[in-house]
Amino acid sequence: MRKITPRTFRGTRDFLPAELLGRRAIVRTIEEAYRKYGFQPLETPAIEYLEVLTGKSEENDKLIYEIKRARGAQTETAETAIALRYDLTVPLARVVAQYGDLPRPFKRYQIQPVWRADRPQPRQGRYREFVQCDADILGTDSLLADAELVALMHEVLHALGFEGFQIRISSRKFLAGLVELTTGSTEKTGAFCRAIDKLDKIGWDEVKVELAESGFNGNEIEQLLQSLQESLGLHPDFEKTEKLLSKSVTAMMGLKEIQTVYRESLDLGVEAELLSCEPTLARGLDYYTGPIFESVITYLPHMGSLSGGGRYDGLVETFSKSGVPATGMSFGLDRIQAALIQLEKFKSAPSETQVLVARFDNEGVSENLRIAALLRKAGFRVEIWYDEDRMKKQFSYADKQQIPLVVIAGPEERAQQQASLKNMRTGEQQVLHVELLVQAIRKELASLDL
Amino acid sequence: MRKITPRTFRGTRDFLPAELLGRRAIVRTIEEAYRKYGFQPLETPAIEYLEVLTGKSEENDKLIYEIKRARGAQTETAETAIALRYDLTVPLARVVAQYGDLPRPFKRYQIQPVWRADRPQPRQGRYREFVQCDADILGTDSLLADAELVALMHEVLHALGFEGFQIRISSRKFLAGLVELTTGSTEKTGAFCRAIDKLDKIGWDEVKVELAESGFNGNEIEQLLQSLQESLGLHPDFEKTEKLLSKSVTAMMGLKEIQTVYRESLDLGVEAELLSCEPTLARGLDYYTGPIFESVITYLPHMGSLSGGGRYDGLVETFSKSGVPATGMSFGLDRIQAALIQLEKFKSAPSETQVLVARFDNEGVSENLRIAALLRKAGFRVEIWYDEDRMKKQFSYADKQQIPLVVIAGPEERAQQQASLKNMRTGEQQVLHVELLVQAIRKELASLDL
Repeated sequence: MRKITPRTFRGTRDFLPAELLGRRAIVRTIEEAYRKYGFQPLETPAIEYLEVLTGKSEENDKLIYEIKRARGAQTETAETAIALRYDLTVPLARVVAQYGDLPRPFKRYQIQPVWRADRPQPRQGRYREFVQCDADILGTDSLLADAELVALMHEVLHALGFEGFQIRISSRKFLAGLVELTTGSTEKTGAFCRAIDKLDKIGWDEVKVELAESGFNGNEIEQLLQSLQESLGLHPDFEKTEKLLSKSVTAMMGLKEIQTVYRESLDLGVEAELLSCEPTLARGLDYYTGPIFESVITYLPHMGSLSGGGRYDGLVETFSKSGVPATGMSFGLDRIQAALIQLEKFKSAPSETQVLVARFDNEGVSENLRIAALLRKAGFRVEIWYDEDRMKKQFSYADKQQIPLVVIAGPEERAQQQASLKNMRTGEQQVLHVELLVQAIRKELASLDL
Repeated sequence: MRKITPRTFRGTRDFLPAELLGRRAIVRTIEEAYRKYGFQPLETPAIEYLEVLTGKSEENDKLIYEIKRARGAQTETAETAIALRYDLTVPLARVVAQYGDLPRPFKRYQIQPVWRADRPQPRQGRYREFVQCDADILGTDSLLADAELVALMHEVLHALGFEGFQIRISSRKFLAGLVELTTGSTEKTGAFCRAIDKLDKIGWDEVKVELAESGFNGNEIEQLLQSLQESLGLHPDFEKTEKLLSKSVTAMMGLKEIQTVYRESLDLGVEAELLSCEPTLARGLDYYTGPIFESVITYLPHMGSLSGGGRYDGLVETFSKSGVPATGMSFGLDRIQAALIQLEKFKSAPSETQVLVARFDNEGVSENLRIAALLRKAGFRVEIWYDEDRMKKQFSYADKQQIPLVVIAGPEERAQQQASLKNMRTGEQQVLHVELLVQAIRKELASLDL
């Protein structure tokens, strides 16, 4: 038989128990925060009709994995192309257009993998399969919804143990207004946003080059950058900015958005020193229409943003006659994990097992099984040793797997309905009646803070 | 702009909050049982190299969804074909062959979706994307591991609230022995197993036809079916069966397997009346080599099995020089959900939100946000009403979403730092100081058993 080399597709990963237990702790924390803010879970299929996915973002269209149909020809006759989702926002927009009886507002969270045919760059945390953690609010144009998302970002980052992060607020309308003031129309807003979105990565000089390539002339570029720089550190002096922008209705609407989301976020308990209004924040996605926001760890500048989001009032309309206002945000699970690892706050353990029931001899197997059943009934997480191995090997397994307690019932103990309980951390061992095991284990685990 | 019809790919499903909350409760119960038995989580990518997936089961090969490469040609140059996994067992075998430093035994559970290009039959619970809940033990040939899986099936079904289910044990070696006794060789074991696997669905007469088509002659068929029928209700009388089969070493090994797994399952606490030895149980998969087992709800005969599993000592070897003994089992999440629905035990609720902070007037928004922040800080799951709507609409939302408590702070209440707390189930309303809200809500939720 030909041997197949066991390997994973480039850009995808296996998550072995130790790493996965750490990732799940992150997901649980995020989920708990989302639920506290009144979001309900949603799951959509990995496979969507291709036409559902395309046309929302030129850049993303190139990254879609299409799926071949009709391998088993008899089972697949339809011709419509199918593909893997590349994000969770487009499927959400489809869902909201598809089901008439969803509550309004519809507050949903979704934590699922997405796939992009991108060049994998594991060091930059870029994979072909990765998990997004989205929270969105649909059915209201109230900026309170945007403020809730900012407060939720704050809640999640706090709960994950991050300190000294920064949540930045901006508005697409504000940026459109700057373009309008400078060029007389909002037409080139998309190009402007795409260019300044890269500011952190490429710097002002490169941004100028990119703006020139997009058709802005020298004067326009100077004026735009000056306006941006003058609006930096916006929030201490809204009045000054207002004067600067008063000739553009769009810019004034954007400023109002930023001010409102900022103020209401504070009312929702966000600490002022973690919040800033940043007009240079543009976010890459084409479909944003109002407030936009993101979070960064300022002392991990190479990490990029841990979360990002914004209002996208036009997306649902691509699937339905009537539009539905929408705003949302997303945490990247891999970014969070990478940041926690850098800060030495990522917790991983090879196992969650609390007790190993060792196999001292073959005659004791039945008794071992009964002890394991007893302990599991009491709610403990218990493993049984399966094979005829020396105790040394069994202890070494418990050690490697960080299983804190081992139960051993040799012939002498069994004769008196007793068992030994060994604490692997302290090395201490006690012999006690089997009926007292549950109580003793509870005490040992409490003493180990488990 | 052309509107895209919002729809899901046939055979796949959206899980909206109400259904998903019920499904998650099932997954949590299964997961808790798996962890109690000492299994650790594993996740593998949805996309695998095609060669990893093929060649384990002829039937499954036809159902594989292949993925197109090189859409963005610059990012995808390799030529190796890729595809979506169709089960969780083959990726597990790959993982065990791929990583040298896994613990032995390696006890892993995995709850992830799989994809099959099958004809969707939603009424029979057959979908193209569905979730499997697997638990496997690799690295030991001890039958204790198989008994643990039988006990784990029992634990899961109990924890899910099923009663009067049946766990059936058989052995591929036993069945191979019957074939050996009858035909002089074990060669046609696969064909025999595939035929009797369908017994429940098609009956004895059709099984005979199928066996004849597989090359068994009339005498052989009669002898095989007689042996099977004589071994029915095997466990009360192992001795009789032993005499019947003593001329086949293979059959005797199989009988020993069944006896051992049966006895050790009882030691692990499985109730005898829920356990049976069933030689007609064959399981469809080609790669089983030893004990096999499944669970059925006897009073839901059309449901098929809720879980199934068995030993597959040869699978890892397809990826590595040295084999690794393995045994495992799987619950189908959709089957469980369907069974619970039929028994009216599937719990679903549109929302987990506990408190809605209503919007009485625009002037109260800031105060509402502060109240929401206060309640969330206390750990409650809280929604804020975003828009200027009448109270009637807000109450109707709380009602539809089954949110049990609504907080209202009108101008009079606000003037005295008070708020109203309305219990939506009883209709009762109390006015109290904002500082006392947390305590009052805790009491109301406790009284509602939430």
